[in-house]
Amino acid sequence: MNPHDSLRAIEWRDGRLYLLDQRKLPGQYEWLELNTARDTARAITDMVVRGAPAIGITAAYGVVLAARAAYAQAQANWREAIQDDLAVLAASRPTAVNLFWALQRMQNLFSALNGDPESALLNEAEQIHAEDIAANQRMGALGAALLPDSGGVLTHCNTGSLATGGYGTALGVIRSAYAQGKLTQVYADETRPWLQGARLTAWELVHDKIPVQLIADSAAASLLRTGQVQWVIVGADRIAANGDAANKIGTYSLAVLARHHGVKFMVAAPTSTIDWQLAEGAAIPIEDRGPQEILNLAGQRVAAEGAAAWNPVFDVTPAELIDAIVTEKGVVESPTRDKMARLQSA
Amino acid sequence: MNPHDSLRAIEWRDGRLYLLDQRKLPGQYEWLELNTARDTARAITDMVVRGAPAIGITAAYGVVLAARAAYAQAQANWREAIQDDLAVLAASRPTAVNLFWALQRMQNLFSALNGDPESALLNEAEQIHAEDIAANQRMGALGAALLPDSGGVLTHCNTGSLATGGYGTALGVIRSAYAQGKLTQVYADETRPWLQGARLTAWELVHDKIPVQLIADSAAASLLRTGQVQWVIVGADRIAANGDAANKIGTYSLAVLARHHGVKFMVAAPTSTIDWQLAEGAAIPIEDRGPQEILNLAGQRVAAEGAAAWNPVFDVTPAELIDAIVTEKGVVESPTRDKMARLQSA
Repeated sequence: MNPHDSLRAIEWRDGRLYLLDQRKLPGQYEWLELNTARDTARAITDMVVRGAPAIGITAAYGVVLAARAAYAQAQANWREAIQDDLAVLAASRPTAVNLFWALQRMQNLFSALNGDPESALLNEAEQIHAEDIAANQRMGALGAALLPDSGGVLTHCNTGSLATGGYGTALGVIRSAYAQGKLTQVYADETRPWLQGARLTAWELVHDKIPVQLIADSAAASLLRTGQVQWVIVGADRIAANGDAANKIGTYSLAVLARHHGVKFMVAAPTSTIDWQLAEGAAIPIEDRGPQEILNLAGQRVAAEGAAAWNPVFDVTPAELIDAIVTEKGVVESPTRDKMARLQSA
Repeated sequence: MNPHDSLRAIEWRDGRLYLLDQRKLPGQYEWLELNTARDTARAITDMVVRGAPAIGITAAYGVVLAARAAYAQAQANWREAIQDDLAVLAASRPTAVNLFWALQRMQNLFSALNGDPESALLNEAEQIHAEDIAANQRMGALGAALLPDSGGVLTHCNTGSLATGGYGTALGVIRSAYAQGKLTQVYADETRPWLQGARLTAWELVHDKIPVQLIADSAAASLLRTGQVQWVIVGADRIAANGDAANKIGTYSLAVLARHHGVKFMVAAPTSTIDWQLAEGAAIPIEDRGPQEILNLAGQRVAAEGAAAWNPVFDVTPAELIDAIVTEKGVVESPTRDKMARLQSA
């Protein structure tokens, strides 16, 4: 767990779940040890770990912890005893569908298990984790292939090793493109209110020696106008069946600005981020984290007493503003319902 | 200088210039006393006072202080002795043209003055100050008349009493519209990196009991999509002869987003903000305040060491994205060079 190794934010070791506390990066590099599903759920809610794929992987390990406790409490009826913990995990955050996908995948095993379920469930959680890293590397190759031979990209929030099992979705594409010599400069939005761009993405890119320039979120329009950026590349927390994509607040703004300036717009996300049950993005639940993240700064009240704030932390980008959705199963250009459906059978 | 009186940020009293220290609002309400032109220039550079009209008024009072020192030093040759101070004032910030306009207006008096110039120059500075307040009230009436009978508006940065001689440009329009019962809700961008929206605009609106909701700058697109906002209303730091308008970074982004969503876009600024010498906005010098405002937060380093940042603090909105420029001499709808030129003879 040395920060100079390949970056990871989630580790299972000696029967315990360890999460790198992303709230404290880059100033402090601290791991939290988690022994219960409820502590795991709280870590998700409190954003110790964030990023849709990372939340899914964390929840899968949380199910292992929940099953251990349930089996210790009621060997014969652990499948009933675990239900409360599963509900707490499912309620930890609302927008990223990977959370529900991972919980479902773990539960799909339950009926076939005999005796102590821990090792089989741990095996599944580790499989989910490993598959996510492999998916990211595949997306990296597919996404990088879309980029021109030389240029700049703009990204938003953090979609790297910290937001996933490792490597990253949008940041994986950027890593792959940089390794191929296709990128001269990466620009990153600081991403208010949590500053994932300033705190996490810059940290990952500096670690990988990829040149990064941070900008205020509101400077993106000026940057796109300069012509220095050919692609905006972002991740997703949930993608509807028609290609509408929910992601960190500000993503929709970038999509409108990219289209206005003739800059291409890419969403990179594993198919576990696609919610096939939702026809379109309007049905995606958007988390509102309450006004204090806007009214306060670094723990200090910054806005006048009496001021209110609206703090939706995700937004939905309509499919018609997306030039390419890159998944581990292939690229969907100018996504539509029909084109997206082909991923289901891929 | 009680915060519950009508808000003012610039006062001349007992032969001294007092500036409300806007860097510390709303947590602390402190006035700085200034006795020299150089201290006045530093206060402008360091953003004790900000906002294009307020910078112009402050610089005018700075000329009074400069003239006093020059006359004390060289009664016969004060017009030469003052030149260094005038240059320092002119170099204090680059983008707001009101600064240069006010310095020029003060200098226009020089040749006609006999004996001690202080009282005549103070009279002119106070005139500039009073005219600015009157212009804001006129713009308030003209701008409010453009708004529908009921609805919401979004504003950016701070354009109120703190940014002007008093009342405000864009915020003056909002004050007038609210007084007429036309506004149910004001939304304000927090306005990174200096958070003028969160710190200053919210404070002014709470003071006036006008309902305000702060949003992260990147949430503006989501807000405009809801249909709750009919007009985006902003100020300007310099307007070119064709109507292109430089203003706080993020303004151009709002103009693109407003057009995309069918929301109207208004720039409110006195004619002293118009730079008739500049054919178009591309020639407006855009201040870059350096990376530390993005790399640090509340005085603490937030981005990884090794990360860089690009921090342009203004951007330019092309005239074709502006529905109305509101000045004290009248409203220019869908501005063009010809329509703007009519203001010169108005």
